[in-house]
Amino acid sequence: MTFATLADFAATLGSLPEPDAQASDLARARDAQLTKPPGALGRLEDLAIWYAGWRGQPRPRLDRPQVVIFAGNHGVVAQGVSAFPPEVTVQMVANFQSGGAAINQLARCFGATLSVVALDLDRPTADFTLAPAMTEADCAAALSAGWQAVDPQADLLVVGEMGIGNTTSAAALACALMGGAPADWVGRGTGLDDAGVARKARVVAAGLGRHHVAARPFEALRCLGGRELAAMTGAIARARTLRIPVLLDGFICTAAAAVLHCARPGALDHCLAGHVSQEPGHARLLERLGKAPLLSLGLRLGEGSGAALAIGIVQGAVACHSGMATFAEAGVAGA
Amino acid sequence: MTFATLADFAATLGSLPEPDAQASDLARARDAQLTKPPGALGRLEDLAIWYAGWRGQPRPRLDRPQVVIFAGNHGVVAQGVSAFPPEVTVQMVANFQSGGAAINQLARCFGATLSVVALDLDRPTADFTLAPAMTEADCAAALSAGWQAVDPQADLLVVGEMGIGNTTSAAALACALMGGAPADWVGRGTGLDDAGVARKARVVAAGLGRHHVAARPFEALRCLGGRELAAMTGAIARARTLRIPVLLDGFICTAAAAVLHCARPGALDHCLAGHVSQEPGHARLLERLGKAPLLSLGLRLGEGSGAALAIGIVQGAVACHSGMATFAEAGVAGA
Repeated sequence: MTFATLADFAATLGSLPEPDAQASDLARARDAQLTKPPGALGRLEDLAIWYAGWRGQPRPRLDRPQVVIFAGNHGVVAQGVSAFPPEVTVQMVANFQSGGAAINQLARCFGATLSVVALDLDRPTADFTLAPAMTEADCAAALSAGWQAVDPQADLLVVGEMGIGNTTSAAALACALMGGAPADWVGRGTGLDDAGVARKARVVAAGLGRHHVAARPFEALRCLGGRELAAMTGAIARARTLRIPVLLDGFICTAAAAVLHCARPGALDHCLAGHVSQEPGHARLLERLGKAPLLSLGLRLGEGSGAALAIGIVQGAVACHSGMATFAEAGVAGA
Repeated sequence: MTFATLADFAATLGSLPEPDAQASDLARARDAQLTKPPGALGRLEDLAIWYAGWRGQPRPRLDRPQVVIFAGNHGVVAQGVSAFPPEVTVQMVANFQSGGAAINQLARCFGATLSVVALDLDRPTADFTLAPAMTEADCAAALSAGWQAVDPQADLLVVGEMGIGNTTSAAALACALMGGAPADWVGRGTGLDDAGVARKARVVAAGLGRHHVAARPFEALRCLGGRELAAMTGAIARARTLRIPVLLDGFICTAAAAVLHCARPGALDHCLAGHVSQEPGHARLLERLGKAPLLSLGLRLGEGSGAALAIGIVQGAVACHSGMATFAEAGVAGA
């Protein structure tokens, strides 16, 4: 599907599928019979039941995890908000394509496919302190690119990003969506010093002052976000229509997801937080979304890396749920 | 190697190998050149450098993880300290052998070999409220069984356990090694109610009152522990002599490991905490050992399950470290 306008995209949120209650109930009943004390697998049990509901299978498999990385460039880098030069975005895309980045290793490690979608890297978004980052057509095209990148055969989705300057866009977007002060949402990104973080907060404040997007989440995305953020928003929505569970990655990915949450509460019910990153706005944003992260290992790389690492946790949960013997099958006495 | 006495075993701690400093230094230098902002992979970077040092390889592989489960029976179950009947130990060993337990699924998920060592299940240890749990010969035999179970070709080790009643043994052992009150170290195990937990604390107090093991960690293991605990102690020591890194599992595994720490500080430098379990004594014990857990997912199953889940984290860390391109190789600009 291709969206011509933001309203076209927003309309997809009108009728979202819910998890299959019968599959969830059967999975819960199965869980209670497995050869372990009740609840002894902790969050793995909830994970497996959640996954079973979304997949509509009481005893699901997890065979085809997909990782998609979206890359975009940001006009706001002119404000000196990143420790790295903007040409790194295209260089890192080449690195993804030749297999040299962290996400390549992690995707291989957990048996996930990896695709990379570079979004008009030679045409950065506008500097949001001066103008809306994207036109409506540009934003709708990026949402469409994300929507189309999801493999309908995938059974777990990770969306990641690369874009020098994009923690600034994510901070501005999160602040517009969730409120609070710019300083609540900015962090060191790829390695700013204190002066750089203060500058970043001023840049976010300037963007919020220029664009009047309160209570209009898609306008916030268009004016303050970036192509790779919009593409992640589109991919996460598409996964919901396909009932593909999603692991959210770091701050930027979660800000893109939050657009859906603000547009329609419950729109992220098919998403779990793969990890919490070291970027301070991420924990704050996850708390607002009511998502407890699976991992907390101090990552702050993006590229989908933290969520990719969490694929192994979901695989473990599903493997236990679907592979274990029941007390009756194993001839083990109960409590 | 077979140990006839506890002194024979203790002597192995006299000369333990340390990590290869040159390999660690080279790994640290490599880490600084990889295509990511410095430190952006968080704990994965420390993990990879730690692993490289123990393996003596600046760019290591992780191909042969091994999981070993030790099972033992406990005379102290006569005191009513478990929610499950003692015959479950032998039933669960059969479940491990036929592939139906959680650890079977997790070992397969992360490509680990799994072996199960049942230790004289028809001959439970003595009830430690009445007599030492093991004779010196029994304890030395269990240490030997653990020592021998480690595959010298393994490159990562998880030791797990099964033994109805063994959270009580672990609590008594932890209390003897680390001090504090019995109530600090007891928890619900497989599902005790409040009255059961209070009874368990009284049982631990009775054991500590009977046996005078202060500052004698191997005597604490013999008098209060169990065969599967001693076997884990032996396996963890053997892994050190082979420079095989170890992921500690839950409370019982960590109590067995703590014997080595108390006998010789630094003896667990080759171990990381795979996870922190819901058994409250576990977090306390890890803090005493100075080990920050990789995962915290509310597991409390044992069997090595939490540590097995953490194999994926170490695999991800090693894969990134050894597989990523450097800035120079990828033609990516630095900060």
